[in-house]
Amino acid sequence: MSSDDTISRKIPKGGLLYGDYLMLDQLLSCVEPITRSLGNEVHDEHLFIVTHQAYELWFKQILFELDSIRNLLNGKEVSETNMLVITSRLNRLVLILKLLVDQVSILETMTPLEFMEFRNYLSPASGFQSVQFRLLENKLGVKNELRVNYGKSHYLTIFQDPKIIELIKKSEQEPSLCDLIQRWLERTPGLEEEDFNFWERYKEVVNGMLESSLREAEQETDPGVKEHILNDYKQKTKVFETIFDESIHNGLITRGERRFSHRALQGALMISLYKDQPRFNQPYHVLTSLMDIDSLITKWRYNHVQMVLRMIGSHQMGTGGSAGYQYLRSTMSDRYKVFVDLFNLSTFLISKDYLPLLTPKMKKKLSTLTHKQDSDEDES
Amino acid sequence: MSSDDTISRKIPKGGLLYGDYLMLDQLLSCVEPITRSLGNEVHDEHLFIVTHQAYELWFKQILFELDSIRNLLNGKEVSETNMLVITSRLNRLVLILKLLVDQVSILETMTPLEFMEFRNYLSPASGFQSVQFRLLENKLGVKNELRVNYGKSHYLTIFQDPKIIELIKKSEQEPSLCDLIQRWLERTPGLEEEDFNFWERYKEVVNGMLESSLREAEQETDPGVKEHILNDYKQKTKVFETIFDESIHNGLITRGERRFSHRALQGALMISLYKDQPRFNQPYHVLTSLMDIDSLITKWRYNHVQMVLRMIGSHQMGTGGSAGYQYLRSTMSDRYKVFVDLFNLSTFLISKDYLPLLTPKMKKKLSTLTHKQDSDEDES
Amino acid sequence: MSSDDTISRKIPKGGLLYGDYLMLDQLLSCVEPITRSLGNEVHDEHLFIVTHQAYELWFKQILFELDSIRNLLNGKEVSETNMLVITSRLNRLVLILKLLVDQVSILETMTPLEFMEFRNYLSPASGFQSVQFRLLENKLGVKNELRVNYGKSHYLTIFQDPKIIELIKKSEQEPSLCDLIQRWLERTPGLEEEDFNFWERYKEVVNGMLESSLREAEQETDPGVKEHILNDYKQKTKVFETIFDESIHNGLITRGERRFSHRALQGALMISLYKDQPRFNQPYHVLTSLMDIDSLITKWRYNHVQMVLRMIGSHQMGTGGSAGYQYLRSTMSDRYKVFVDLFNLSTFLISKDYLPLLTPKMKKKLSTLTHKQDSDEDES
Amino acid sequence: MSSDDTISRKIPKGGLLYGDYLMLDQLLSCVEPITRSLGNEVHDEHLFIVTHQAYELWFKQILFELDSIRNLLNGKEVSETNMLVITSRLNRLVLILKLLVDQVSILETMTPLEFMEFRNYLSPASGFQSVQFRLLENKLGVKNELRVNYGKSHYLTIFQDPKIIELIKKSEQEPSLCDLIQRWLERTPGLEEEDFNFWERYKEVVNGMLESSLREAEQETDPGVKEHILNDYKQKTKVFETIFDESIHNGLITRGERRFSHRALQGALMISLYKDQPRFNQPYHVLTSLMDIDSLITKWRYNHVQMVLRMIGSHQMGTGGSAGYQYLRSTMSDRYKVFVDLFNLSTFLISKDYLPLLTPKMKKKLSTLTHKQDSDEDES
Repeated sequence: MSSDDTISRKIPKGGLLYGDYLMLDQLLSCVEPITRSLGNEVHDEHLFIVTHQAYELWFKQILFELDSIRNLLNGKEVSETNMLVITSRLNRLVLILKLLVDQVSILETMTPLEFMEFRNYLSPASGFQSVQFRLLENKLGVKNELRVNYGKSHYLTIFQDPKIIELIKKSEQEPSLCDLIQRWLERTPGLEEEDFNFWERYKEVVNGMLESSLREAEQETDPGVKEHILNDYKQKTKVFETIFDESIHNGLITRGERRFSHRALQGALMISLYKDQPRFNQPYHVLTSLMDIDSLITKWRYNHVQMVLRMIGSHQMGTGGSAGYQYLRSTMSDRYKVFVDLFNLSTFLISKDYLPLLTPKMKKKLSTLTHKQDSDEDES
Repeated sequence: MSSDDTISRKIPKGGLLYGDYLMLDQLLSCVEPITRSLGNEVHDEHLFIVTHQAYELWFKQILFELDSIRNLLNGKEVSETNMLVITSRLNRLVLILKLLVDQVSILETMTPLEFMEFRNYLSPASGFQSVQFRLLENKLGVKNELRVNYGKSHYLTIFQDPKIIELIKKSEQEPSLCDLIQRWLERTPGLEEEDFNFWERYKEVVNGMLESSLREAEQETDPGVKEHILNDYKQKTKVFETIFDESIHNGLITRGERRFSHRALQGALMISLYKDQPRFNQPYHVLTSLMDIDSLITKWRYNHVQMVLRMIGSHQMGTGGSAGYQYLRSTMSDRYKVFVDLFNLSTFLISKDYLPLLTPKMKKKLSTLTHKQDSDEDES
Repeated sequence: MSSDDTISRKIPKGGLLYGDYLMLDQLLSCVEPITRSLGNEVHDEHLFIVTHQAYELWFKQILFELDSIRNLLNGKEVSETNMLVITSRLNRLVLILKLLVDQVSILETMTPLEFMEFRNYLSPASGFQSVQFRLLENKLGVKNELRVNYGKSHYLTIFQDPKIIELIKKSEQEPSLCDLIQRWLERTPGLEEEDFNFWERYKEVVNGMLESSLREAEQETDPGVKEHILNDYKQKTKVFETIFDESIHNGLITRGERRFSHRALQGALMISLYKDQPRFNQPYHVLTSLMDIDSLITKWRYNHVQMVLRMIGSHQMGTGGSAGYQYLRSTMSDRYKVFVDLFNLSTFLISKDYLPLLTPKMKKKLSTLTHKQDSDEDES
Repeated sequence: MSSDDTISRKIPKGGLLYGDYLMLDQLLSCVEPITRSLGNEVHDEHLFIVTHQAYELWFKQILFELDSIRNLLNGKEVSETNMLVITSRLNRLVLILKLLVDQVSILETMTPLEFMEFRNYLSPASGFQSVQFRLLENKLGVKNELRVNYGKSHYLTIFQDPKIIELIKKSEQEPSLCDLIQRWLERTPGLEEEDFNFWERYKEVVNGMLESSLREAEQETDPGVKEHILNDYKQKTKVFETIFDESIHNGLITRGERRFSHRALQGALMISLYKDQPRFNQPYHVLTSLMDIDSLITKWRYNHVQMVLRMIGSHQMGTGGSAGYQYLRSTMSDRYKVFVDLFNLSTFLISKDYLPLLTPKMKKKLSTLTHKQDSDEDES
């Protein structure tokens, strides 16, 4: 997993040849079907191995990008230039995940009967034991307490190597992408109470909209229409309360239905509503890419689940002893969605016509690129 | 490349764990950026390595399937069951190649400036040095004499390891997929002169069509229309002569415009015209998949060329010293198409209404499993 | 929807031009944003319309292919040639559905705020009102009684045009693809009790396997291992009972967990187990394509749901007054899967080594076209 | 094509239903196979029509986005907010073109023999007659004088309707996207001679690099190495001359090998080299999307050509009387690439270490968003 103790590679005088550069001898010798070793080669095991190895290579790339993005986010401020780097690396993650989603179709060319010929040798190997995938989930921010139990025991129990256990534990303790994104969102310009105070302005506008719909209901003479408007008013009031009343919001967090801190949610909403302001362009891209990543991982889980269903059916056990299909299907729930709050944002959008006007000062703040530069200019 | 001398893997008592099964420690330690070793890591080199390693893993799978298909074809007769295996493995190749075509887009997220920061270290490494890709081309049947010269010297000169050179030479001498497909096509039922004699019947029908269009021209009074029909007649006559006159056909082979033997071409045409006959169903699928494979490799080359163009421009040299873009672009020509004759088949199709009728005996030969056999059983 | 009363198109003397052939004037004039008519054009409405119209055009194609496939299946016997046509049309459906799944990403380029600017004009228009999509579901075989209630009323109530209601009702009454596939599976050669009697042989083999695992448990001395084997034995016995005991199977049908008749299930299982027999090649392809179709429609629903979630959030109502996201999410359940039994088949597969041997007579019935027939000809 | 004279749509009191909103009756009645009208329906014509109609719907969307982008670019200055709109609409075009590229595979499910059954009725209809595709090419900036002759006559001759001819002529005369992008690039901040004067600085740096490589050659004692370095020096000098010497550049324009004005090329190069400066972020995205669009249109042409080759072979005429495959293949040449200069930019990139340093003034200019705002701030 790590390369800490690898001996530095040396470049020979004449330069590196392609095969040496990519260490192809070592790489390709990893494709060694177990049925071949046992003298009874099953043709399709080769595909099974190559597909999973390709997954793991890409997982490694994903972890590499994820670490670099977390590093860039993990400061007091994120400079504009770093913002650009972050969006381009998130975009790369999106493309890699798209490839992984498509890749499932190749494994589907194996038929269940062919798989049956070698899956007994694999036991107890199971995709559930992919260390890299667990790291990936933890670094993204899949919460341990929301994890569906694997059998009845903690998911760590399946790993035995102490180095690996430490690696995984570390990934649980370090700030995840989800944590860092929240901290960054909490600093969104415009949230400061002593300044633009977005949240107050937003609440005012929404409350105004709700009141006017209540008044509309009161003036309505047709009882059917009146009831319809009133119901709509009540439902909307209830929905908005879940973000206006912080304790309700926190209750939803406890139940695993929300993840973001109250202030991070405000930041995300502000960015979404004022996304056309130049300074929010990159941040809005970030939010979109995060949703893409969440969606694609769910799609990958879904495709994987379908493939497993075709291969082993819905009642049999997975090779690792898990309940197979049933377990995997449960991981598709919204509980595994890290950025669930971003998906729900649309619920709280309001039309351009009602949007609180930006003050000239705020307008200026959002059309230049960094705080720092403004003060620099003042000095010059 | 080969696993001849690898020590047989042993399965421990408790069974294999996922990571051991896939040899992940060894596999993932192959991702070792050279700029990291040099203490000056360039972020994007990691992606560059992973992408190319993923390509090579899939190339290994392609070679594995290709060898198995060539084995299955390399007998006196191909049983129906083997035919099914062949079509399903060809289909798998199609899906893998589709993935490889898509994969290029991930590498495109690297920008030219980022690539420039580490490409100097790579020299003289070059994608041209991929042994597996050369093997793949040779095993498919890319002809050496049709290969665009690499610089001015033979393409083998860039490989220095004698084992590799031998491997490549062997792949040139063994019957390629293209060779084996031809032999199989030459045995297509219906070609036998003493029996159905498809070729004679086909020629008759085509000549009849041509003659009737000549007669139509002669009876036409409007000189403009007359000329149009005559020109059409002449052009068609000329085109059909290229397959009716074997010496013209062989001349086209010499010039690299055709590849198939005259008899193999007849087989392919017969299968295409009578594809609705049950017995030709699998063979027709084979022909379609072969075209898909050829198309996808060309698409892969094309995407790769575009990517190289974006990365290094059109005037600079490739890292291996080749003319880069210009060289790669030349490999997109039809000369690298192995199954070019299949693409051209449509030229020689004729409408159902003109198709030579199958004799009852031939019909039976190509016909369903059910009816006859059922009644046979009644008798037995 | 239908073209019964359209006046026959005439071909002018000079032949049809491209634009006239495709009726492009009429077609393209259907793209008429409502916000443009209202003098306040919202840019993104154009995309919204074009995307949905493209969906509907493809739905029309899907219905066309679906009808043709149902026609071909709707006879006493399906000839080999028709079988080929069916597989190729099912394959076409698969490709079209793949396109539709991808197409969702284009609509996602619309942002929620942009959508908000025109979605009020659409009410009560809703994707739920797509007549063609309802027809598609019905013709595939989505069961009305398994349908999630739309609001509280029957889904038909949203359509008002009597012609459309009749069309939909007809599609409910006609045999669906699911019905016809079952009838065809029930005729699978080998099921006949007086002949090969697959079901008896299969039960025998499975019972043998279960008994030997029971004996293994009894002989085991380690109590832990013993318990593990016994549990496994019990679970498997229970699972197999659900197909061996027809009343359990029928109970599962009543609960919507299974769809296929008992005998159709037997046919599907026989085909899956003996798929390498030439005669079962096309049938096996059919089963695979049906699963692909089911999977892709679920993926389309899933992508659609994600898109709606991004556009309108999870608490707001859909434009048609439905609960939007919540409603759509519910349609992703397995209850909307028509060929759910095919996905579950893998549960009941047994290894090649245990497979009941085909009798010579049965082998011949399912066997190649070549050998026997060639010798038949010699005799005649 | 246009909707100038369409009567404004009215919204009924109860609101629009889905089918009325999308004008589905009118839309779907456009799918009317000619062979059905002639009483001899060929099944696959339905697919042929639907596929082409879907293409045309998307072409309409592409033209709509293209017009809006051209409008936004067609001012003295492009505001940051408009820049965001432009990048997001270009991105949408990229996604639509990707769909169109994939869509070809559906049409490929038609076999040549099936196509042959109805293609005679189509003559002289030909994809070449798609008015919208011609408009699309013209609006992008495909140059008429670079167009491969269609037969021997001007491509306009195939259109007969005077309204259409006028529409196409207008599209040739209006500034194309390529023209407008050039004007915008010519205004790239940093190009001004009296200020940062990028071009002079860039030339200096490049000349310095070339000289130092000449000196290296002179000091080299090994004659082989010396020659190698000298050759490299000469080749690079020659390549850079093509942009340093404006007359050579203009000569390449005349020959159709370049398209951009000399100053636009400078702007594009400046943006590419300093892409990490915040102000160049959107512009760099624009350049990338333009290359994507060019690549995808070429891919679409390529896929289309392959499909035509499979359908009609390489010697037969297209339905419109064109030379079919040969003609289409010729449209794949680089002459049809509108943004060819962007692809070639990588040739002229230089490593970060050599990049001319930005002056503090220039640095400031590129880290804030607009000229105007700087001066506004001075005033305040």
